[in-house]
Amino acid sequence: MIRIAIAGYGNLGKGVEAAVKNAADMELVAVFTRRDPATVKLRTPGVPVVPVDRMEEYCGKVDVVVNCGGSATDLPETTPAIAAHFSVIDSFDTHARIPEHFATVDGVSEKAGTVSIISVGWDPGLFSLTRMYANAVLPNGNDYTFWGRGVSQGHSDAIRRIDGVLDARQYTVPVEDAVARVRAGENPELSVREKHTRECYVVAEEGADLARIENEIKTMPNYFADYDTTVHFISMEELREKHMGIPHGGCVIRSGNTGMDLETKHTIEYRLQLESNPEFTGSVLIAYARAAFRLAKKGETGCHTVFDIAPALLMPEDGAELRAHLL
Amino acid sequence: MIRIAIAGYGNLGKGVEAAVKNAADMELVAVFTRRDPATVKLRTPGVPVVPVDRMEEYCGKVDVVVNCGGSATDLPETTPAIAAHFSVIDSFDTHARIPEHFATVDGVSEKAGTVSIISVGWDPGLFSLTRMYANAVLPNGNDYTFWGRGVSQGHSDAIRRIDGVLDARQYTVPVEDAVARVRAGENPELSVREKHTRECYVVAEEGADLARIENEIKTMPNYFADYDTTVHFISMEELREKHMGIPHGGCVIRSGNTGMDLETKHTIEYRLQLESNPEFTGSVLIAYARAAFRLAKKGETGCHTVFDIAPALLMPEDGAELRAHLL
Repeated sequence: MIRIAIAGYGNLGKGVEAAVKNAADMELVAVFTRRDPATVKLRTPGVPVVPVDRMEEYCGKVDVVVNCGGSATDLPETTPAIAAHFSVIDSFDTHARIPEHFATVDGVSEKAGTVSIISVGWDPGLFSLTRMYANAVLPNGNDYTFWGRGVSQGHSDAIRRIDGVLDARQYTVPVEDAVARVRAGENPELSVREKHTRECYVVAEEGADLARIENEIKTMPNYFADYDTTVHFISMEELREKHMGIPHGGCVIRSGNTGMDLETKHTIEYRLQLESNPEFTGSVLIAYARAAFRLAKKGETGCHTVFDIAPALLMPEDGAELRAHLL
Repeated sequence: MIRIAIAGYGNLGKGVEAAVKNAADMELVAVFTRRDPATVKLRTPGVPVVPVDRMEEYCGKVDVVVNCGGSATDLPETTPAIAAHFSVIDSFDTHARIPEHFATVDGVSEKAGTVSIISVGWDPGLFSLTRMYANAVLPNGNDYTFWGRGVSQGHSDAIRRIDGVLDARQYTVPVEDAVARVRAGENPELSVREKHTRECYVVAEEGADLARIENEIKTMPNYFADYDTTVHFISMEELREKHMGIPHGGCVIRSGNTGMDLETKHTIEYRLQLESNPEFTGSVLIAYARAAFRLAKKGETGCHTVFDIAPALLMPEDGAELRAHLL
């Protein structure tokens, strides 16, 4: 059995917990938390909840730590700290800062003799793999990535910070006409506004100035100003009834040309439709935890990404069985 | 430059030739043929056409041979013969015989110290990879593979063997309603007949008994008897005008569940739409030739499949560039 520990028990940590339960070759041996352990109620019986500053006591008792901290701020600190003692997987998703994060984690892992795999999930992750395979096969072409329809936690949080807002959910929605043009191989040039719209469901304080809130949302730089944004004010009851899920998904499309004169057109499309973003991401993390365990057993060290991992390492079955049944 | 040789200059060989032309880090150095070399006209200037029995003269002058022989009969003989002297890629696609072919090629490659990668293309190949990643992430679920709309060479050949048939094209067509049910996550049980239909365009000899030909097609065991098949008799002119392309494609869909009680549903879909099956397959072969070249340089030996190849090995760029731009 591969012994898994989870660091951070939020939505993603719970998703990893469920994925471990559904993996026949894995067991959850600890959950590390910064909260008071007495306040953390796991759904897996008999697993200790351990203060994060006592993590080192688990050296030799854990094969892979899945770091489920908040991405933008936590992971650049916590993944290297974990890599100093354990093999570790994270889902670091600030694309622009991946090279820097990779370098830091690689340095620590090489020194400590551990295996780390960063930026695992679906984007970065499965979408990145799709882009890579599609680029390898069709070097002459264009990639497009569309996200949604799904909840963006970052955009929801941004709305919540506006004065007079009690709660909010923001859905990122791909523009169907743009997707259709890409799928047809038109290779259109698309502005940010032409690719996605943003739908906001907002619960305001009683008596709040709704026009001001709507204006603050729609003009917020980076988050909303470059998009066509719609704002719906709803009651707390409606939010709780209709908007508590965390669905997401999207698609990667590459169309490209082959032939002596590039006269032949092909389209590759990969599409995810996810009822729960954190549960799906947790399942991807767990597949890569299996790969990290195997690389560590072979004596490998250092930082990796999904690009460096042979796909067979993700599966519990051996090579002969995979060739017979999946190839 | 990676030095590529092509063994067999049919449709697939021509597809590989075009893919090499479009790869900045590769050059075509020879085409091996069983035909009279004088009758083989390449589209790449200055490349020698060499009788296959003189292949060994190219030891040390070729990095990877891409074996483009006819799959079902040729490759089990020719890939091991090539592997005794060169790193080699093939597109062996008789799924049931892959384990046997793998064992033979692996034995030869290990002994000769060469690298081989078999069953490369889109199915087996990119579709197999999609199935594997989807199974790794969603171990609880069901896979479905649909092929088409596209030309099946084997089925077209089977029609051509019928008495009174001058030429024919057979299109495999997925049943759209079945695809829609799978995409919606219904996990339906689908018979062979419910997944695909077969469309035949047939040129008959003048005065041939069309009713007999149609009946012979529709009742042909394995090829057509289990399917809803339509037969259209057309003129040679119409066949030449409308049915000379070799388009293909299809999709892999896996829907599966996550969560502590498997209560959450997800769908993964991968879709190819190809104007030319051999050109696209040739492009996949060439990406894996790059991987074989790199494995050989690292001193690895033996037989591999797409499952064993880390995706970064397929790309000309180095790891840092890939992380910065594709992850």
